[in-house]
Amino acid sequence: MDFIGSHILSIDQFERVDIDRIFDVARMMEPYAQRHRVTKVLDGAILGNMFFEPSTRTRVSFGCAFNLLGGEVRETTGFENSALAKGESLYDTARVLSGYSDVIAMRHPAEGSVSEFASASRVPVINGGDGANEHPTQALLDLYTIEKELIGKGRGIDGLRIGMIGDLKHGRTVHSLAKLLSRYKNIELHLVSPEALQMPEALVEVLREANHRVIISDDLESSISHVDIVYSTRIQEERFGTKEEADLYRGKFRLNQSVYTQHCEPNTVIMHPLPRDSRAEANELDSDLNENPNLAIFRQTDNGIVLRMSLFALVLDVVDKVDDSAQAVRWYTGSRFQ
Amino acid sequence: MDFIGSHILSIDQFERVDIDRIFDVARMMEPYAQRHRVTKVLDGAILGNMFFEPSTRTRVSFGCAFNLLGGEVRETTGFENSALAKGESLYDTARVLSGYSDVIAMRHPAEGSVSEFASASRVPVINGGDGANEHPTQALLDLYTIEKELIGKGRGIDGLRIGMIGDLKHGRTVHSLAKLLSRYKNIELHLVSPEALQMPEALVEVLREANHRVIISDDLESSISHVDIVYSTRIQEERFGTKEEADLYRGKFRLNQSVYTQHCEPNTVIMHPLPRDSRAEANELDSDLNENPNLAIFRQTDNGIVLRMSLFALVLDVVDKVDDSAQAVRWYTGSRFQ
Amino acid sequence: MDFIGSHILSIDQFERVDIDRIFDVARMMEPYAQRHRVTKVLDGAILGNMFFEPSTRTRVSFGCAFNLLGGEVRETTGFENSALAKGESLYDTARVLSGYSDVIAMRHPAEGSVSEFASASRVPVINGGDGANEHPTQALLDLYTIEKELIGKGRGIDGLRIGMIGDLKHGRTVHSLAKLLSRYKNIELHLVSPEALQMPEALVEVLREANHRVIISDDLESSISHVDIVYSTRIQEERFGTKEEADLYRGKFRLNQSVYTQHCEPNTVIMHPLPRDSRAEANELDSDLNENPNLAIFRQTDNGIVLRMSLFALVLDVVDKVDDSAQAVRWYTGSRFQ
Repeated sequence: MDFIGSHILSIDQFERVDIDRIFDVARMMEPYAQRHRVTKVLDGAILGNMFFEPSTRTRVSFGCAFNLLGGEVRETTGFENSALAKGESLYDTARVLSGYSDVIAMRHPAEGSVSEFASASRVPVINGGDGANEHPTQALLDLYTIEKELIGKGRGIDGLRIGMIGDLKHGRTVHSLAKLLSRYKNIELHLVSPEALQMPEALVEVLREANHRVIISDDLESSISHVDIVYSTRIQEERFGTKEEADLYRGKFRLNQSVYTQHCEPNTVIMHPLPRDSRAEANELDSDLNENPNLAIFRQTDNGIVLRMSLFALVLDVVDKVDDSAQAVRWYTGSRFQ
Repeated sequence: MDFIGSHILSIDQFERVDIDRIFDVARMMEPYAQRHRVTKVLDGAILGNMFFEPSTRTRVSFGCAFNLLGGEVRETTGFENSALAKGESLYDTARVLSGYSDVIAMRHPAEGSVSEFASASRVPVINGGDGANEHPTQALLDLYTIEKELIGKGRGIDGLRIGMIGDLKHGRTVHSLAKLLSRYKNIELHLVSPEALQMPEALVEVLREANHRVIISDDLESSISHVDIVYSTRIQEERFGTKEEADLYRGKFRLNQSVYTQHCEPNTVIMHPLPRDSRAEANELDSDLNENPNLAIFRQTDNGIVLRMSLFALVLDVVDKVDDSAQAVRWYTGSRFQ
Repeated sequence: MDFIGSHILSIDQFERVDIDRIFDVARMMEPYAQRHRVTKVLDGAILGNMFFEPSTRTRVSFGCAFNLLGGEVRETTGFENSALAKGESLYDTARVLSGYSDVIAMRHPAEGSVSEFASASRVPVINGGDGANEHPTQALLDLYTIEKELIGKGRGIDGLRIGMIGDLKHGRTVHSLAKLLSRYKNIELHLVSPEALQMPEALVEVLREANHRVIISDDLESSISHVDIVYSTRIQEERFGTKEEADLYRGKFRLNQSVYTQHCEPNTVIMHPLPRDSRAEANELDSDLNENPNLAIFRQTDNGIVLRMSLFALVLDVVDKVDDSAQAVRWYTGSRFQ
C-alpha cells in the first residue's frame, strides 16, 4: 500500500510487505523511543488525539509517540464532552476536527465509527479502536513484539507456535492478531477458551485457509507445552451483558510461575494485550511472573510507542527526514531500563 | 483599541477599525493554518486553556491556534475537576491560574464569569463563551467568513443581505453577529424564527438604530430568496427548561438542497455556527447540502483557527514577528484540502 | 540525597542541605517562570502528568513547570478513565506508563499509592499528593515562600514564629510543613484549632524533639499577635465522614482585615495552601485581605512553579544546562505583575 496520506483503519489494509515496512521504520524509531536521541522532524505538526471512549494507555501512547517525533498533541478524552451529544453527525465532527490538526488518532465505542469519521476527514486518521471491531495498532505491536522476541532465538513469525488463551470470542486483539498471522507461513495456533468464548468460526476458517494448524481446546496445560508464545487475555467484562455472565468465565485459565515451570518449554514468551485483571477472582496472569524475563507484556507496550511512531512517520511521509534533525539527549535517562 | 495585553471579553470592545485589524492579521495567519509554513513565534509561551464547561470544538480550536504559533497549551476540561467545587472564588482561581500561563482562553457556564475572572487575572483573558452571554471569537469568525465568502463575488459586509434562521432568542452567536453588523452600513436582515424564539427586541433596536433594514418573519422560503448569506442555527436545547419545550420548536425551519435550489439565488452562502443537529427530528441543515460548494460551515470552523491565532498574536504583541521564524513544512499535507 | 534519577515521594527524604539545594535551584528558575527568559533545556522530554484524582491547580502547575523547561506534557485527569478500573494493578500501570515518559508526576486518592507506583516505575516519580498522606511539593513551596517572604525582613526560617490555623488534624499541608520545620532551629509554633481537629500528637512530638516551642490553643486572636507568619487552612470537608460533621467546624477561625489590623504585628505574612473556602459559612480568610500586601497566598502558588521546575531539573540532572539555551522572550509580558 501507499502509506502517504492514508488512513490506517484496519489490518485488512496490510499485505506482508506493508507489515515489513512498518516494522523496519519502527526499528528505526527505537533510539528515539529509548531516549538515546531526540528528533524534531514533526516540529510544528499537530496530532488530534480524539478519544471518544476512555483509554489512558492507548491515548497516552499515541500522544507520546507524536511528541517523540517533535509534534504537538491536542486531545479529547470522553464522549460526553462532545458536540456528538448535541446531535452532531460523525461526518460534521470529522470535517471540523480535521481542519485543526495534521493527523488524527481516534477511538470511539461504536463499530465502524472510525471509518465513517475517516471518510469525511481531510487528514489521515489512525484507528485507535472502534468498539469490538478493530484496533490495528495493537495487532501490529503484538506482531512486532513476537518478531522481536523470537529473533534472538533464531526463530521468526513463519513457523511460529502460539497459544492464545482466554476470551477469544470478544477479544479484539486476538482476532486481529489471528488475521495478521494469516499473512505468514506454517503457523500452529492453540486456541484455549471456555466453549462459550471460542474464537469466531470465520476467523478459524481464515487461519485454516492460510494452511495454518489450528487446535481448539479448553485445556490450558497441554496447550502451552509446545509453543513459542503464550498470549493470554482478559475476560472482556464490558462486552458481556452483565457482570454475572462475565463472572462465569473469570479465573478459568490462569498462568502463574508454577504452571509455567511445569508445562512450558524454557524461554516460552508470555504476552498479554493488557490491562491484565489482577483481582483475585480473575488473575489470568499471576504477578509471580513479574520477574520472569520471558514475560514480554511491558515490552509489548514499549513497542507500541515505536510502532505508532512508525505509522505517523509513514503516513506523514517523514521517514527519510527523522534522522536529519537528530540531537543528543541532555537529561538523565539512566533509570529507564533497569 | 489597544490590543496589547488586553482581555478579549466582548464584541462591544471592537470598533470597525479594530475588526479590520483583527481580520488583517487573520489573513496573515492563513499560510500557517494551511500548513504551508510553520512559525515558532510563541515558542516558550503557555496558553491556559481553561474550559470549565465542555466544548471540544472551541477548546481544541483555541489550543491548535496557539500550537500553530509555536506555543504550548495546558488545559482543564470540566467544572468538577476544579477547586471552584471546594468553595474557591473565581477571583482566587484567576489569580492562581494566571500565574501559570502567558494568556488564558476560558469558557464557563455562568454569564459574566469570564469578565469576573479577567478582572483578577494577571495575564490577558480571551472569552471562549460565558453561558448565554458572549462568545466573541465565534462572532468574529462568522463575520470573517462572511467577508471572505463575499469578497470573491465583488461584495462586502457593507450592503450585506443576510437571513438568520432558527432559535434567535437563545442563539448567542446570532446575537453577537447582529451586534457586529451594527458597525457596518446598509444591511438587510431577515430574522426567521418561531414567534416564541424571536431575536430580543433590544438587539433589533440596535440594528434599526444603525439604519439597517430588519424584516421579522416566520416564513423560511420567502426570507432566503434574496440574500447573500443564510445563517441557520440549532435549537439550543440546553437553554430551555425541558427537552419537551425544545421539541416544540425543533425541525420548523429546515434547509435542504431542494429548498435551496428552489428558493435561493445562485451561490447564496450557507452558514451555521455548528454543531448542527442532524437527528431526524431536528436536521435544520440537511446533509444533502454537504457537496454544495456554497456550504461554508466547515470553512467557518477553519476560519476560527486563523481568527484565534490573530487574537493571540495581537494580544501578545507578536504580529510583526510571526514571519521572522517561518520555516517550511516538512511533512505531507496533500490531503488537507481535497 | 542524590537527586539524579530519584523519586520524590516524601519530605522525609530531605535533609536541610537538600532543601537548601532545592531552593537554590528554584531561585535560578525565577527569571524563566517570570518570563524574563525562555529555556529549552528539556526540549524533547516528556512528563507523564498522571492525576488519578482531580486537582486543576497542582496538575496545571506541574505541567507548566515542565513546559517552562522546554518539555512536553501528556496527562490523565481522572480515575474512571483508567485501566485501574478494569482490575489493573498499580504495578502494571506504573510499568506501562513509565515506558512512555521521562518523568512522572502523580496524584492518587489512596495513601501510599504513589510510592507503590514508584517502586515499579522505570522513570523518576514525583508525588503530587496521595490521599491524606503526603504532598511534598506543597510543603516545599510553603517553606520556600516563608524563606522568601522573611528574607527581605532580615529574618529566616531559623527563629521563625508561625501560627497554624484551622483543620490541623486533616490538613496534609500543615503536617508536612511541621515536619520540614523540624529540620530548622528555634521555632515557635502556635497551633490553633478546635479541640477535635488538633494536630496529631506524633507530629507535635516531632516538633518538641527538635526543641521547638509548641503552643496549642483554640484562641485565634492571641495566637496570631506575635508571629511572623499566619498559616490558615480550610476545613477539609472531603476527609470528614459527612458534610454535617464538617459544618460543625467551619467558620470557627476567620481572619479578615479588621482582625489582622487589631491583632497582628505590622507586616505579618498571611499564607494558605489554597483553595480557600470563600463561601459565607466558611470564609477562613476574608477577601477584604486581597489588597493587603502581606497576603502571600498567590505568591505561594507562583512559587509552586519554580519549586517544581527545580525538582524536575534536579531529578533529570539538567541544572547546569538550564542557562545554556536561554533565549529572550519575544511576546508581551507586561501585565503579569501589576
